[in-house]
Amino acid sequence: MDDRRIPEATVARLPRYLQVLLDAAEAGTTTLSSEDLATAAGLTSAKVRKDLSFLGSHGTRGVGYRVPQLADEISVALGLTVDRPLVIVGIGNLGRALASYDGFNRRGFRVVGLLDADPAKVGTEVAGLDVESVEHLETIVAERGVGLAVIATPAPHAQSLADRLVAAGIGALLNFAPTHLVVPDPVALRTVDLSTELQILSFYEQGVTGMDAAAG
Amino acid sequence: MDDRRIPEATVARLPRYLQVLLDAAEAGTTTLSSEDLATAAGLTSAKVRKDLSFLGSHGTRGVGYRVPQLADEISVALGLTVDRPLVIVGIGNLGRALASYDGFNRRGFRVVGLLDADPAKVGTEVAGLDVESVEHLETIVAERGVGLAVIATPAPHAQSLADRLVAAGIGALLNFAPTHLVVPDPVALRTVDLSTELQILSFYEQGVTGMDAAAG
Repeated sequence: MDDRRIPEATVARLPRYLQVLLDAAEAGTTTLSSEDLATAAGLTSAKVRKDLSFLGSHGTRGVGYRVPQLADEISVALGLTVDRPLVIVGIGNLGRALASYDGFNRRGFRVVGLLDADPAKVGTEVAGLDVESVEHLETIVAERGVGLAVIATPAPHAQSLADRLVAAGIGALLNFAPTHLVVPDPVALRTVDLSTELQILSFYEQGVTGMDAAAG
Repeated sequence: MDDRRIPEATVARLPRYLQVLLDAAEAGTTTLSSEDLATAAGLTSAKVRKDLSFLGSHGTRGVGYRVPQLADEISVALGLTVDRPLVIVGIGNLGRALASYDGFNRRGFRVVGLLDADPAKVGTEVAGLDVESVEHLETIVAERGVGLAVIATPAPHAQSLADRLVAAGIGALLNFAPTHLVVPDPVALRTVDLSTELQILSFYEQGVTGMDAAAG
């Protein structure tokens, strides 16, 4: 990548392109045009070409993009070619679901710790791992080289856990607790609030707007 | 609302304002300035005033916004003041977590059906409801007035289920399957792809960009 300032919206679309490319590779397809990519990803081909130009990929006229090469380029850009150990904090229903989620173990992400504050849960096995006490959070992060953490605790515990994770050296947090977290720069934070998603859908379901409501 | 064309980004922030207002109401606070709202929501006060102006709410100089009134206005705008029955399709780990998720039963959303294709799961109880066969999807949607559906199945089944849900009269879909779904206008669709969220975080964790990475 020559220009490392990839726009935020482009970054958010890279995983989608990667999925399309990996599906194509599995089907034995070796090249894809920007139109092919656009159709599969639900975008315009102009958008696809613009996005990929940020990676330095321009395709070849009349041929398109070479599938394995472009998949590699996107994987490198996303940091998926190195091992990414992560911990999940909060092993309630959602934490258990996340621990068992196939998608987390693909693409180089590896769940290396499941932490909970409840003594009744510590020591039980979830998705092949023993749940550990959140008291050992700092040691676990340091010893296992953890850079990513997923918070799936109730809202009141989320900020103090985020603070501890950041102090322990975490670089990125994925927050499922329905609360607004504050983390210092340059720690990356994304919040997935399921109730918020439903409320947004509820707005569009009412048909109170004439806009395109498809935000998928 | 005078102007019903509320921008998509504003709609996406309304649930956050509502949460702040409900927290304030619970704490006995009766008015909030745009600065108070901005701080609590992690936004600028100019953004808050602009967003709320789309609802026709302008606050009062020196007083601010009246908490219960603004909460009501946002609730009405989001369609949360009427009962919103929803079904969850796919009762694996994620579906179970969603069925038990408190946030779904707040704000007027009510889980009225849990559907799965696996005969071993049908008839078992999850979060106080009996799992039902997905064969009865059309009947359940029609008889229980279901307008919203959550898809938590493996990717290969998601599109055909989405088609059936849309044909049955669903107005909005929240998709957790890691695949790109296509639904006809005006059905609303939002996709929450947990693996995509992690890949986006992975990008920012590498520090390959100088941009503000906090997208929460």
